Amino acid sequence: MAAPVAPRRGVGRRRGSPDTRGEIVAAARREFAAKGFDNTSLRGVARTAGVDPALVHHYFSDKQDLFLAAMNLPFDPRTVLPPALQGPVDGVGERLVGTVLQIWDDPALRPALLSVVRSALGNEGTAHLLRDGFLRLVIEQIAALPGISDPQRRGSLAGSQIIGLIVARYVVGLEPIASMPAVRLAALVGPTIERYLFDDLG
Amino acid sequence: MAAPVAPRRGVGRRRGSPDTRGEIVAAARREFAAKGFDNTSLRGVARTAGVDPALVHHYFSDKQDLFLAAMNLPFDPRTVLPPALQGPVDGVGERLVGTVLQIWDDPALRPALLSVVRSALGNEGTAHLLRDGFLRLVIEQIAALPGISDPQRRGSLAGSQIIGLIVARYVVGLEPIASMPAVRLAALVGPTIERYLFDDLG
Repeated sequence: MAAPVAPRRGVGRRRGSPDTRGEIVAAARREFAAKGFDNTSLRGVARTAGVDPALVHHYFSDKQDLFLAAMNLPFDPRTVLPPALQGPVDGVGERLVGTVLQIWDDPALRPALLSVVRSALGNEGTAHLLRDGFLRLVIEQIAALPGISDPQRRGSLAGSQIIGLIVARYVVGLEPIASMPAVRLAALVGPTIERYLFDDLG
Repeated sequence: MAAPVAPRRGVGRRRGSPDTRGEIVAAARREFAAKGFDNTSLRGVARTAGVDPALVHHYFSDKQDLFLAAMNLPFDPRTVLPPALQGPVDGVGERLVGTVLQIWDDPALRPALLSVVRSALGNEGTAHLLRDGFLRLVIEQIAALPGISDPQRRGSLAGSQIIGLIVARYVVGLEPIASMPAVRLAALVGPTIERYLFDDLG
């Protein structure tokens, strides 16, 4: 049997070959998993990937950008959520839930989303990434709603309902939540989100 | 190296030795995981465990009893939930959430609970057990509330909020939900549960 041959690496390859972005993402995935979101730096990822930090900045505008790529999320919450949040305050809960369900109901996106959620919930080591990387990003956007008080508390309560909805509908398959039309489910759950975001909670 | 020696099994062992219950539970765990809740029978578990069906009935009163043992749940929802549900309707949501948090906040119970939830959510094969075995049991109890209409829909919506709360507080550690006093959190989330259970949802 022939000995395995190490793949050849041309000198120019690290400067931006088709694989460089993928190698940075793979290094980021390892760094985020090992150190968490807050203790991972673009510079550290560059070192792990064996590339110049400038190259990381070439592909990713900031740490959250790199994080979203490392999570392999098939959508970017920074572009998807604002349309739901920026409309009239009345109905924002229904629009927010509707947006989440629309993304999750897409059969082209769901396998990747399920795999992210299963890995984050099934594994102690990656749950904190969901919290510090992804949910923080969502709550920051909720905090930008006009006149919202105590956004961390309100946002995390709203987040808990949306997380539970995702788990019930897509992970556990709890009926009738699992098969209800998204529009109907958004109408049922929307007022809960609005209560958490805007009502006097005492 | 000596060949591994098969453990000796005395004739009387299967009749009720200290290990018999454990062997039945282990067999049940395999059967539930392979076939789901509905397609598992006490008779089939007895066959897998290599014991007489009467012995399974000796240790477990019914399939749900065996299921709860197989899930390794450190509490029995059939005895824990009724006190919260049977009091006055006003405040039932707060009492229900308070009961869930009280169980989960107990440091002696939490590791086993986390392991059940992580396994059910992190693994496609066991998510349906959470749905058909455990959540069905909870929703049956909610359905027994006096005058409740459409208990499956109402119960699953309430369940989605409670699942989300558990994931946010104990699995993901989302602040301030993770460190808020249980009484406070129950007061914040209770009205959501009551809306799902009793309000006109359209």
